[in-house]
Amino acid sequence: MIPGPTPVPETVLKAMGRHPIGHRSGEFQAVVRRTTEQLRWLHQTQADVLVITGSGTAAMEAGIINTLSRGDKVICGDNGKFGERWVKLAKAYGLDVQVVKADWGQPLDPEAFRTALAADTDKKIKAIILTHSETSTGVINDLETISQYVRAHGTALTIADCVTSLGACNVPMDSWGIDVVASGSQKGYMMPPGLSFVAMSERAWQAHKRSDLPKFYLDLGPYQKTAAQDSNPFTPAVNLYFALESALTMMQAEGLDAIFERHARHRAAAQAAMKAIGLPLYAAEGHGSPAITAVAPEGIDAELLRKTVKEQFDILLAGGQDHLKGKVFRIGHLGFVCDRDVLTAVAAIESTLQSLGLHKGNMGAGIAAAAAAMN
Amino acid sequence: MIPGPTPVPETVLKAMGRHPIGHRSGEFQAVVRRTTEQLRWLHQTQADVLVITGSGTAAMEAGIINTLSRGDKVICGDNGKFGERWVKLAKAYGLDVQVVKADWGQPLDPEAFRTALAADTDKKIKAIILTHSETSTGVINDLETISQYVRAHGTALTIADCVTSLGACNVPMDSWGIDVVASGSQKGYMMPPGLSFVAMSERAWQAHKRSDLPKFYLDLGPYQKTAAQDSNPFTPAVNLYFALESALTMMQAEGLDAIFERHARHRAAAQAAMKAIGLPLYAAEGHGSPAITAVAPEGIDAELLRKTVKEQFDILLAGGQDHLKGKVFRIGHLGFVCDRDVLTAVAAIESTLQSLGLHKGNMGAGIAAAAAAMN
Repeated sequence: MIPGPTPVPETVLKAMGRHPIGHRSGEFQAVVRRTTEQLRWLHQTQADVLVITGSGTAAMEAGIINTLSRGDKVICGDNGKFGERWVKLAKAYGLDVQVVKADWGQPLDPEAFRTALAADTDKKIKAIILTHSETSTGVINDLETISQYVRAHGTALTIADCVTSLGACNVPMDSWGIDVVASGSQKGYMMPPGLSFVAMSERAWQAHKRSDLPKFYLDLGPYQKTAAQDSNPFTPAVNLYFALESALTMMQAEGLDAIFERHARHRAAAQAAMKAIGLPLYAAEGHGSPAITAVAPEGIDAELLRKTVKEQFDILLAGGQDHLKGKVFRIGHLGFVCDRDVLTAVAAIESTLQSLGLHKGNMGAGIAAAAAAMN
Repeated sequence: MIPGPTPVPETVLKAMGRHPIGHRSGEFQAVVRRTTEQLRWLHQTQADVLVITGSGTAAMEAGIINTLSRGDKVICGDNGKFGERWVKLAKAYGLDVQVVKADWGQPLDPEAFRTALAADTDKKIKAIILTHSETSTGVINDLETISQYVRAHGTALTIADCVTSLGACNVPMDSWGIDVVASGSQKGYMMPPGLSFVAMSERAWQAHKRSDLPKFYLDLGPYQKTAAQDSNPFTPAVNLYFALESALTMMQAEGLDAIFERHARHRAAAQAAMKAIGLPLYAAEGHGSPAITAVAPEGIDAELLRKTVKEQFDILLAGGQDHLKGKVFRIGHLGFVCDRDVLTAVAAIESTLQSLGLHKGNMGAGIAAAAAAMN
């Protein structure tokens, strides 16, 4: 029950476990062709969705270095660890970075972006860069509204880390007008880590032509060119491609609406359960991520709770990152997670609080609330 | 029988097929700790060997961007497709690239490097960059001698693509004084593609401190720092790590000398067989790679031969790349390949030549020569 690597269905593991095949073979081209169409379905886009062998950070970096140039002015949203990563990444490439901050646990304020964009009458701002679902704090940012403001600006691109939102909630790339969507395989995709994905709008490709940032492995030009021939510029992780096709086939069978509803239901259950047992949520009310619920159990050592849950029940909860270590634990409900998993996690947390003498409410109140939220 | 992805033992596939675990867990740290030691063994080094989720090209790029700075003068060896890639990569990062060329099929001339390095009395040359085993032509370059000349220069680093030499022949990083060794998982490692490896000498780390090329995902600094804690800076491909540990354990059981002897034996067998049936080798005499034998079957359509061998015997031979397409085929004998595999490939080639009416020698001469070379 961590936000990645997430649980992987046995069907997907089996698909991954077959012997690799030549990456220039017709058989592999057929896999690339099918997954390309499936990825467009998942992103709700007609744009190119390119597959990189690498971590999600590689996809984030690709989003920046393929669309921007040295000294370009950009605004990064930063309300958690992955927002911070955007800032570091943009600075590593010599961009002129302005940061719109929010406290950890709070969402980014769309109004801050609107104001900055409206004031930029000479169109110096080349990109708004932000994280959709901030995994470190369990906060979902209002990407839809912010990308509307970016569209109104007319020049800037919207570059979004959708690593823990894609496949968990609605991220309709084309209708929201997002220019770059970055994601990673070990999240909503229900498969092991090792592949990352970058979807690029037509506007992003126009920017690619102008971009002067140095790049080679992450230059998306050759990826686009070879994708048109159902291939890749470099040897891809072919076994992870097998897993990808299998996982996306399962997702298509469930359907996007059902997937989003399931994640919303599990968020509601996790939130209701934690409130019912007196554990405050870390994310501001109404801004919880559909992928992960962060809990700040005041007066309780979150690491002790995690350790005990792991030892007795073999359920891994995520800890707090950086300054939140020991103060926060996080329940991942992302990807291949069913109602039973959420109920089990809540029961294990309640039982552990009871055994540690730390349960603040009525034993069973969490389960009751979770069950009510899922019915 | 292609030079990558190479055959993967069932044990390795099974190790890879288990459910992923958290990449920050103690259990995964133990995997990282063990594989780090195994990688040092394979590289015959005390240096850091870092693991990147990515293709071999990512490791090559990491070798350049972590040790060099904008405008640095470098010499790239180029006698095939992967030599060309080094040139493109170095130019993409604004290096001042001088190219030492040899015709495809010929080895790089160490004397050309010695002369250039000796003439560089003001020590402007910062690196000699070359491919050890040139997969496109089946030529092995004399990395040992060239790195000796680089050491005599005193300032320049040796940066080597050992993608199809590591695990096939002797590449003792420390005793040869190589500064950067780049490799990829789908080659001598006997595992699927998706991981790449960069070993960095102490001199290379000194250069890392001065390097001003922009980098983030491929910045080896955070990899070194987290490796010291048996961890990774970004979510690694944990299932490929399982495969890595399994494959390196098998390699350790066989032993480096035995592995090198096996590859040398298969090279001898493939070369002898092709000569015996009147098919000229593409690589210059005495410079054939232990990983792959390129054959230039004059007057025979190499693509027709490959296609027929695939259709009748389900054995995939590699084709010629770029201008060699149709003129060359390549027999991979890299990684998890046994005497039977080489004998089978030779038999299939002979049989196919006979059925096409193209056998130029006595039917069975190839098998006889291969068997003699392996006995």
